[in-house]
Amino acid sequence: MKYNNKNYTSLWYKNGVVKIIDQTLLPENFKIIDLTTTDDIINAIKTMKVRGAPLIGVAGAFGVYFAFKEYNGEDDHQKLNNKIIELKNSRPTAVNLQFAVDLVYDHALNTNYENPEEDALDKANELFDSEIKACKRIGEHGFKILNKLEVKEYINLLTHCNAGWLATVDYGTASSPVFEAAYRGLDIHVWVDETRPRNQGGKLTAWEYFHEDIPHTIITDNAGGHLMRNGEVDIVITGADRIALNGDTANKIGTYLKALAAYDNKIPFYIAAPISTIDFNMKSGKDIPIEIRSENEIKFSGNTPLNHTLSPALNHGFDVTPARLITGFITEKGIFTPEQLKELKNGKKQTSIT
Amino acid sequence: MKYNNKNYTSLWYKNGVVKIIDQTLLPENFKIIDLTTTDDIINAIKTMKVRGAPLIGVAGAFGVYFAFKEYNGEDDHQKLNNKIIELKNSRPTAVNLQFAVDLVYDHALNTNYENPEEDALDKANELFDSEIKACKRIGEHGFKILNKLEVKEYINLLTHCNAGWLATVDYGTASSPVFEAAYRGLDIHVWVDETRPRNQGGKLTAWEYFHEDIPHTIITDNAGGHLMRNGEVDIVITGADRIALNGDTANKIGTYLKALAAYDNKIPFYIAAPISTIDFNMKSGKDIPIEIRSENEIKFSGNTPLNHTLSPALNHGFDVTPARLITGFITEKGIFTPEQLKELKNGKKQTSIT
Repeated sequence: MKYNNKNYTSLWYKNGVVKIIDQTLLPENFKIIDLTTTDDIINAIKTMKVRGAPLIGVAGAFGVYFAFKEYNGEDDHQKLNNKIIELKNSRPTAVNLQFAVDLVYDHALNTNYENPEEDALDKANELFDSEIKACKRIGEHGFKILNKLEVKEYINLLTHCNAGWLATVDYGTASSPVFEAAYRGLDIHVWVDETRPRNQGGKLTAWEYFHEDIPHTIITDNAGGHLMRNGEVDIVITGADRIALNGDTANKIGTYLKALAAYDNKIPFYIAAPISTIDFNMKSGKDIPIEIRSENEIKFSGNTPLNHTLSPALNHGFDVTPARLITGFITEKGIFTPEQLKELKNGKKQTSIT
Repeated sequence: MKYNNKNYTSLWYKNGVVKIIDQTLLPENFKIIDLTTTDDIINAIKTMKVRGAPLIGVAGAFGVYFAFKEYNGEDDHQKLNNKIIELKNSRPTAVNLQFAVDLVYDHALNTNYENPEEDALDKANELFDSEIKACKRIGEHGFKILNKLEVKEYINLLTHCNAGWLATVDYGTASSPVFEAAYRGLDIHVWVDETRPRNQGGKLTAWEYFHEDIPHTIITDNAGGHLMRNGEVDIVITGADRIALNGDTANKIGTYLKALAAYDNKIPFYIAAPISTIDFNMKSGKDIPIEIRSENEIKFSGNTPLNHTLSPALNHGFDVTPARLITGFITEKGIFTPEQLKELKNGKKQTSIT
């Protein structure tokens, strides 16, 4: 999507180098950095220079390619394996990272093994392409929901955190239906939750919509309930970091509160995510590991103290929204109710609800 | 209550001067400033150097005294009246300000009118004393609720914004039961919602508990739902800016989301407030005016940008929690269900629920 009228993806591969937009510097600075080793990838994921469940999956996929490059000696199998585990564990909550790393690693190990490095790169590039296509399809499916909404003058959509193109490779998950709607001429305005403590809504989502010319307004995380009670929200769409088989969904901390408010006000609440975000091995949300991050993310913005710094703070990165509060899942394969996710696992005929 | 082991009230009157702690400078700087005119009072309220519904009521009461001092000529009645209206309207949502200004103004006008200035001062001092007593009583009533809770090792209480001694004259409303519990030896820990955009929880409530040696932890506004779902919250108590006759309650934006989460997890949700916060003339919450403040409170902390500053932001200061989500009201006269508030108006025998 566009930054200053030029098209970008949030990550791209060229001649042995993975290029990313350093997301910790946005919106003030737009800086492209080069990643050339597995450790570069791991560090970029840990420091959140790349973030967003689908994007860290793709970054992890290229990390497997680097790992094969780095450990290509006769006795390197154990080192390679350890590095792959380190890569998979660089962040705990999003399942896409584990999915993508396993996908590429298994592929490279199980092909003819003449050139696993090249096999890994091929598979990573394949995942890169398929994630873009998946996000585009999410937009097309999501558009059908937006197009059917009965609204006053224009659609008021609320989103939490950044599930935009920066969080994926392109288009985004929760943002893709918005881009699609704008492209097809629907009038739409987005309430952008600031999303403390890292303000990925107020910094990244707002930045994306600004450069795509989508009408939007930043609000505090506290404000969504008030807007919903006053008829100012027609639909809520967020992304996801991991979806359990029963539909319970881990996403950025605070998503559960928005789902409660949507439910209380009879506003549809959708999760937009590629199928790779569904953890078919996890029965319910209570088993999803929830990352705890540094308390300094709450206490400071850079060096500026935001709260009483002598007090302790606790910083859970995610919460789990129970399936009962979720209207549906917008995926690249169609739109599904929580109950229908099981059918995707079993490979039954997929019965999309739209 | 204590700052650096010395006792303070958040405001006090001495020899023609109202002294306040400048709450916009906390927690970094503890500075006492002098207010000596009605405009000083109005400005301190508007700029939130004094804030908190009960405290701005008391500040407004002393403002009436200053107004009588300033407009004591034969032809000053209209000017006096205009200044009183300006004072009452210096912030819109909290009813305590209107209540207190009317109380003192009516008293001074309707006494023998030999020395209305002194009559106003007497009434303001009387209100000052009665607010302290009311908050102390709120603590004693609230303690009974805390003492009955069945908890694991200690009580985990969650609060939103600052309804502490800084928001009143002393003890606070939501904090008074906490102070009382600690004083009587109950083990208690407080989850302090940061409370964006002004971070009055993370800056002021945390500062208060730190200096009173009450165990506490700052969390983002997004985190309360996650903690509740995971059994980490035993009770929620917040303050209020205005309570309608049916029990609908305006409080700092985001309170409604916490009430929803408490209800969803069967956690008791109480509002602690003096009777002066009840607007007996307002039937339901939908008529409560909601202040909209500057978008810069969301975009910046001082000069530090917190979000994409080229995007617009919208900053509602309060929301309304519907009565159906409120377990009870902890007042100086006892604890009441939403349905029982009407009896307080009608002057019927007050039937506290504990």
